[in-house]
Amino acid sequence: METNRLEAFSDGVFAIAITLLVLVFLDTHINQHDVGGELVGLWPYYLAYVLTFVTIGIIWVNHHALFAYIAYADRTLLFLNIALLIPVVFLPFPTELLAKFVRTDQGTPVALLYGLTMVVMALIFNAIWHYATRRHNLLRIDVDRREVTGISRSYAAGPFIYGIATAVGLVSPETSAILYGVIAAVYVSTAAWGARA
Amino acid sequence: METNRLEAFSDGVFAIAITLLVLVFLDTHINQHDVGGELVGLWPYYLAYVLTFVTIGIIWVNHHALFAYIAYADRTLLFLNIALLIPVVFLPFPTELLAKFVRTDQGTPVALLYGLTMVVMALIFNAIWHYATRRHNLLRIDVDRREVTGISRSYAAGPFIYGIATAVGLVSPETSAILYGVIAAVYVSTAAWGARA
Amino acid sequence: METNRLEAFSDGVFAIAITLLVLVFLDTHINQHDVGGELVGLWPYYLAYVLTFVTIGIIWVNHHALFAYIAYADRTLLFLNIALLIPVVFLPFPTELLAKFVRTDQGTPVALLYGLTMVVMALIFNAIWHYATRRHNLLRIDVDRREVTGISRSYAAGPFIYGIATAVGLVSPETSAILYGVIAAVYVSTAAWGARA
Amino acid sequence: METNRLEAFSDGVFAIAITLLVLVFLDTHINQHDVGGELVGLWPYYLAYVLTFVTIGIIWVNHHALFAYIAYADRTLLFLNIALLIPVVFLPFPTELLAKFVRTDQGTPVALLYGLTMVVMALIFNAIWHYATRRHNLLRIDVDRREVTGISRSYAAGPFIYGIATAVGLVSPETSAILYGVIAAVYVSTAAWGARA
Repeated sequence: METNRLEAFSDGVFAIAITLLVLVFLDTHINQHDVGGELVGLWPYYLAYVLTFVTIGIIWVNHHALFAYIAYADRTLLFLNIALLIPVVFLPFPTELLAKFVRTDQGTPVALLYGLTMVVMALIFNAIWHYATRRHNLLRIDVDRREVTGISRSYAAGPFIYGIATAVGLVSPETSAILYGVIAAVYVSTAAWGARA
Repeated sequence: METNRLEAFSDGVFAIAITLLVLVFLDTHINQHDVGGELVGLWPYYLAYVLTFVTIGIIWVNHHALFAYIAYADRTLLFLNIALLIPVVFLPFPTELLAKFVRTDQGTPVALLYGLTMVVMALIFNAIWHYATRRHNLLRIDVDRREVTGISRSYAAGPFIYGIATAVGLVSPETSAILYGVIAAVYVSTAAWGARA
Repeated sequence: METNRLEAFSDGVFAIAITLLVLVFLDTHINQHDVGGELVGLWPYYLAYVLTFVTIGIIWVNHHALFAYIAYADRTLLFLNIALLIPVVFLPFPTELLAKFVRTDQGTPVALLYGLTMVVMALIFNAIWHYATRRHNLLRIDVDRREVTGISRSYAAGPFIYGIATAVGLVSPETSAILYGVIAAVYVSTAAWGARA
Repeated sequence: METNRLEAFSDGVFAIAITLLVLVFLDTHINQHDVGGELVGLWPYYLAYVLTFVTIGIIWVNHHALFAYIAYADRTLLFLNIALLIPVVFLPFPTELLAKFVRTDQGTPVALLYGLTMVVMALIFNAIWHYATRRHNLLRIDVDRREVTGISRSYAAGPFIYGIATAVGLVSPETSAILYGVIAAVYVSTAAWGARA
């Protein structure tokens, strides 16, 4: 089976997951007394919203980059791809919790939940790539083996980077949240820089 | 009418229904006192979420497999397809109830609701296949009759399998929920195995 | 501008609006005491859900039928199409209210809201068709003028039929709700019958 | 990379954001006593819903117009486009607040939030256009330089127009809300008129 169907379905899920992030705000209950003050007080929500928005954007860009190398999908790949979408769709929940609790004494569990979701996502990304590269008939025939090795290495780093940022949450959930932002910012700047270079 | 429009519309509905499963979590009201404990206590929600996520994934894969044989859609087929989407879109509701109540003394009605939704879905799947195969001009001209008979048999099993798992819910809703998971797991492993073989 | 973009966008909106109908259920607050009884008591919700699901399905089918005649879209047509989507996206709200209140003494306003939404939708449908047929360069060049006149007549009936069903709601909201169901059922059977004939 | 993927993803996000506007209504809690009166009292909600619906429609039309000139997307453009979607997806939140509070003494912060969201959106629109026109290899080769200059000017006006309407909110939030509506109405009439002319 060709991968366009799978890509279109995944794109749909990415687009919906990113848009459902607005629910993080619709669930806040702003009340009549000091709307301006409450809106300003929502600043961790704005940060968490932008963080996850950009993060899902990055996953989407990476998903495309990945499937630029993969020409065919068998059923295992279909289900690996569905597995990848499980943590992606879940993200609005840890995002809301991060915004709500990261600056309270309940920050550690929410920083861990956010980070673990990203670790699981990164692991499944690796599993997809590992599966596709081991079964040569799924890759495009014109793929350069050295490029494949390069991608394998950069993907392999993902779970470790997010694992470290998550572990930091045991000590300081706020630092952990900042690290999630730094990871996204570094990725975007590198990609944008790469595009300019 | 060709079926691409119908397939694109259905794919959209599958993608949205699968993504709305996150609402199961956004509706839980985690409070300030013991966030870590509450997140751990949500384990039936994680299981129910993964169960329905994979189940909708399977329905999506099956829907594609089905329409790989069907070349044209008349209006009856259009409306049968819309009928199929009715239980699919409904699934986040029984999923939430299953997560919330399956381990309480109110487990039976929620296990039944979940199972009946799947039985209805399986019956409409059969109706679509039955309708398409009886009107030969809707099938692709190169379809092998023996393959058609094979598919008819495997689809016919669906309502019975889910019917049994549902009936078990009258005695033990938890066993029923486990069976829904087993059905999905068996399907995925068989499909993945088939892909490897 | 060709119409595929407009159709894809509209299809997306139809698919999402139909899927958001599940929110009608997620907003019910089933509680611990008699889950089975409450689920049975939700029967007006199941009916309202199926009613609007099929109705949006019909609008989707009609939208396709309409744009099978229209080859090009100018900006006026783009905005008329966006206007059409306004009542479509709104539908989950009157659906929820209909389910909740139609059998209480507050049935009239909810039956009116539902019906008026349909009347507005039918009027905009006519406006789109009227605009497209008056500007011949938007229609496909091979369109049969007699077919166009036939469609104009059948579309013109829409606002009247829904208008009558709505007006009935002033006296009996339940009859009004039944009529909305009858309109949908007649449409589906005619379409399916037409497909068989 | 060609832009169709980016456009399809953005279209998905626009379609979902526009459809989620119904949540503005599903979050109102209509109660049993005077449903008719409450539905009439929701009139600021209907206006706010139509306002944002049409506004997102306009953004969608503009986004297409923009990408009719852009032939290729590099990663910077991908992320600029994701940045554009951040305020678009956010819009249901200020819409709900505008409907709820604009006529109370808490009107100013909600009018500001709505307007600032539009200003940010307009600024990113300019950034995308600025980036694409400065890197000639992203534009279509047949683009007329004078058209480009014309578009640059009309886009440059966006942040100012919304900036003024926002600033008015400091004095009169209701006037500010009316101005948001006037901006949308003028845009639609001009576009429709242009289409006729």
